[in-house]
Amino acid sequence: MKRTKINKLLKSEGPIDDILIKGWIRTRRDSKTFSFIEMNDGSCLANIQVIADDKLPNYEDIRKINTGSSVSVRGKLVPSQGKGQKWEVQAEEFEIIQAAPEDYPLQKKRHSDEFLRTIAHLRPRTNKYGAAFRIRSDISYAIHRFFRENGFRYVHTPILTGSDCEGAGEMFKVTTLSAGRNDIQNDFFGKEAKLTVSGQLEAELLALALGDVYTFGPTFRAENSNTRRHAAEFWMVEPEMAFCDIEDNMDLAEKIIKYVIEYVFAECNQDLELFCRFVDKGLKSRLESIAGSDFIRLPYNEAVNIMKKSNEKFEFPASYGSDLQTEHERFLTEKYFKKPVIVFDYPKEIKPFYMRLNDDEKTVAAMDVLVPQIGEIIGGSQREERYAFLKSRMIESGLSLDDYWWYLESRKYGSAPHSGFGLGFERLIMLITGITNIRDVIPFPRTPKNIEF
Amino acid sequence: MKRTKINKLLKSEGPIDDILIKGWIRTRRDSKTFSFIEMNDGSCLANIQVIADDKLPNYEDIRKINTGSSVSVRGKLVPSQGKGQKWEVQAEEFEIIQAAPEDYPLQKKRHSDEFLRTIAHLRPRTNKYGAAFRIRSDISYAIHRFFRENGFRYVHTPILTGSDCEGAGEMFKVTTLSAGRNDIQNDFFGKEAKLTVSGQLEAELLALALGDVYTFGPTFRAENSNTRRHAAEFWMVEPEMAFCDIEDNMDLAEKIIKYVIEYVFAECNQDLELFCRFVDKGLKSRLESIAGSDFIRLPYNEAVNIMKKSNEKFEFPASYGSDLQTEHERFLTEKYFKKPVIVFDYPKEIKPFYMRLNDDEKTVAAMDVLVPQIGEIIGGSQREERYAFLKSRMIESGLSLDDYWWYLESRKYGSAPHSGFGLGFERLIMLITGITNIRDVIPFPRTPKNIEF
Repeated sequence: MKRTKINKLLKSEGPIDDILIKGWIRTRRDSKTFSFIEMNDGSCLANIQVIADDKLPNYEDIRKINTGSSVSVRGKLVPSQGKGQKWEVQAEEFEIIQAAPEDYPLQKKRHSDEFLRTIAHLRPRTNKYGAAFRIRSDISYAIHRFFRENGFRYVHTPILTGSDCEGAGEMFKVTTLSAGRNDIQNDFFGKEAKLTVSGQLEAELLALALGDVYTFGPTFRAENSNTRRHAAEFWMVEPEMAFCDIEDNMDLAEKIIKYVIEYVFAECNQDLELFCRFVDKGLKSRLESIAGSDFIRLPYNEAVNIMKKSNEKFEFPASYGSDLQTEHERFLTEKYFKKPVIVFDYPKEIKPFYMRLNDDEKTVAAMDVLVPQIGEIIGGSQREERYAFLKSRMIESGLSLDDYWWYLESRKYGSAPHSGFGLGFERLIMLITGITNIRDVIPFPRTPKNIEF
Repeated sequence: MKRTKINKLLKSEGPIDDILIKGWIRTRRDSKTFSFIEMNDGSCLANIQVIADDKLPNYEDIRKINTGSSVSVRGKLVPSQGKGQKWEVQAEEFEIIQAAPEDYPLQKKRHSDEFLRTIAHLRPRTNKYGAAFRIRSDISYAIHRFFRENGFRYVHTPILTGSDCEGAGEMFKVTTLSAGRNDIQNDFFGKEAKLTVSGQLEAELLALALGDVYTFGPTFRAENSNTRRHAAEFWMVEPEMAFCDIEDNMDLAEKIIKYVIEYVFAECNQDLELFCRFVDKGLKSRLESIAGSDFIRLPYNEAVNIMKKSNEKFEFPASYGSDLQTEHERFLTEKYFKKPVIVFDYPKEIKPFYMRLNDDEKTVAAMDVLVPQIGEIIGGSQREERYAFLKSRMIESGLSLDDYWWYLESRKYGSAPHSGFGLGFERLIMLITGITNIRDVIPFPRTPKNIEF
C-alpha cells in the first residue's frame, strides 16, 4: 500500500477507511488505555494526531517511544473528537521503524538558533527550520514561474571562471595542485581559476542572443566577515534583458518582489503564519505594505540630500561620492519613506566598469532596490553597450582587455541596450520569513572556518 | 511603445496595425525598390520577415546592413505574400541600432561545432545553439514542475564541502591562500575545502526531515579526461525520498525521463524539429520509443550473463565484479533490448559505501538507468539506513567516521528506509537533442585547460 502524505490527509473531504502514513513522532501523551501521538512527515507544518490503543499488539512498546522516532501507521482517518484538528488517525497497525534514543537532541522545548546551527543535520526537523526550507523551495519555484510567465529563458552560467565580474577581489581560488605547489601551468585549467561572484557577464552574452534570460545559481564571496548578512556561498537570481533600459529594469525588479510575496501569501499560508507569530510580529503588515506600494524612485543625489538634511545620527554620515551604508538604506525605507526605495544614477567612481555612463558623464545608470528590514535586496544597472565607452572604462578600472576580449566583442557585433540585476536569494527569504541571520535560511551555511556537514 | 517578441507575433490571430520589434538580422535579400530582411530575436527558432522599401528615409543604409546587426523596426503585421510564413512586417520606421562589421564571424553558412566552440560568446546566436539553450531552459523547467507536481521540495545543498560523497577523489580544491602556501590553518575554512561531486549526503538529511526533496545544481569532477561525455562542471538532479525503497526509486527514475520527453514534445516542437532534421535523423523515433516503453529491469548478474552469452566483440569483455562499460550499456539498450534498461543489485565492491546491503550480503541495492545512445543517464540506490551496517561499510571504505558524524547520526535518530538517484542533466539534454558532445549543450563548458569566457 502506498503511503499518503499528511498534508493531503489533513485536506481530506471525508473519512477514509484504510490509510498508511509514515513519519516521525513529535509528542506522545498517554491515558490509561490509549495514547495520543502527534506525527509529522515534513510535507507540512501541521502534525496529524494518531490514536493508538491497547488493542494494538505492540502497545507496550508504543507507550515507550520517544520524540524523533520513525514510525509507520495503518488505520482509519476519522473526524477528530478533540479541537484544533479536523481529522485524526485511529491506528490499526503501528510499526516502530526506529525508536529514537532518549538523548535525541530535539526534545519538545525551545532551542536557541545558535544551538540549532551546531546540529544543522537535524534542525530541518523542527517547526521553524522545516517551514524555512519549505518556503525556500516555494520561493524558488515562484521565481522560475515568474520568469517563465514573462518569456525569460533560464541559463546556466559557469561557476568556475577566469574572470572577476565585480572587480572586487575576494574570490575563492580553485585548483587541483597539491598544497604548497604553485606550478600553475600544471593546474587543471593551466591558469588561475576562481569561483564566480556573478553570472552577469556570461548572461549578457546569452541575452544578446536569446533576448530575456536569467540565472539562478550559487555564487561565492571569500569575504572574511562574520555578519548576519554575509555567507561565503549564497544563491543569486540574475535576469538580463536585451533591448531594455534602466526604467524597464526597475519595473521588473519591483514586479518580481511583489510577485514572490503574493505567491507566498497564496501558497505558503501555514508556514508563513509560523513566522508571523513566532519570529516577527510585524512581518505580515510589512509584506502587505511592500506588495501594495509603488516603490519610490530616487536619484542617488537626492537620497544623499535627504540624509544630510535629516536629523538622524548615522555612524557614517552620508556624503556625495560614497556608497550607501546599510544604516542609510534602512533609514530611507523604514523611517523616511516607509516603503521600498529604488535609488538610481550613482557616481561612476563607486560602481563597476560595466554600468552605462549617463549623459552627465559623472553618473552611471545603476539602480539598487532597498526594502525595509533588509536594506539592499537588488543591485542592477543598464549595461554599457557602447564599445568605446566600455573599453575606456575597462582601462580606467585596470582590467585586462585580453582577458575580456569576448565581452568586448559583444559590443562590436550587433550590440544593443540591455539591462539586468542581481537579486540576493537569501535576502529575499529573510525578507519573507523575518529571519534575521543568513545562517538560518541556508540548510548548511558556509562562513569563515565553518564547513562542517 | 513596448516591443513584441517574434514568437508572439508569429502566433498572431490577425493583422496588427502598429507593432515594434527588436532583434538581429539574419539575412537580407534586395530587389530594386525594397529588401526582404529575416530578423530573429531569440524568442524562438523562426525568423520574421521584414519588408523595408525605398520610402524609408534611411533605405540606402538598410541596403548595406549585414548579418548580425541589431535593429528596431516599427510597422504593420500583415499576411505574408510569400510562402513559408503566415505573417510578415511592413516596416514604417527602421532603426539600425548597431551595424555589424563585415567580419562578423557568423555569416550565413554552416560552421563546424569545433569552430563554434572557439566563439562560445557568439554561438547562441546560431539556430542550433539557440535551440539547444532554449531546450535546456525548457527541460529545467519541466524538471522543477515534475517534482512540484509530485510533492517534492527543492533544496540547495552546499557546493563547498569538506566531504567526498563518492569516495572517488578527483575533486577540485578551494582555497584563499596564495599559490605556493600550505598553511591550511590560515585558509578560509581552516581545513581543506572542495567542490561537491554530489549533494546526496546532505539531501538525505533533508529527506529525513521534509520527506521528498531534490537538488538541481552544479557539481564538479576534476577528471583529466577529454571525452565527449565529460565536463569538469555539470548540473545534476538528485531526488531523495524518505520511506522509499529501490522499487519506488526505479519507478520515479522511469517516470521523470518519460515526463521530460513528453514535455519537450508538447512544448518545444519547433526547436526539437531542428534536431530531428539536422542533427539526428533517428531522434524522434528514439524518443517516442523511450516514452512509450516499459523499461527493462535487470539484475546485474543477468546483465553480465547476457553479455557473456552474446557474440558481441567488446573491447573489455563483461565479467562479474566489474562495473559496466559504456559499450556494455549501449549493447544492452541499443542491440539486445532496444529500449531503456535499469540494471540493479550490483556487487558491493564496485559501489560506494552508502548503498544498502542486500540480504545476500554480496550485492547492494544500486540501480543504473541505461538509455540508447547515451548509456548511463541515472545512477541511484536505496541508501543504507541501518547504523551498524553503514558504520562497518564506512570503515571498510576507509572513511573517517569523525568527518561524517552527522551522516551517521541520521541513522541513530529516527532512521528510515530511503532512496534516491542522480540524473546527469547534460546527458538528458544530449538524449533529447541528439547532440553527442557535452561541450555543445553547456553554454560555456569547462574541460581540462579550457576556462575561456
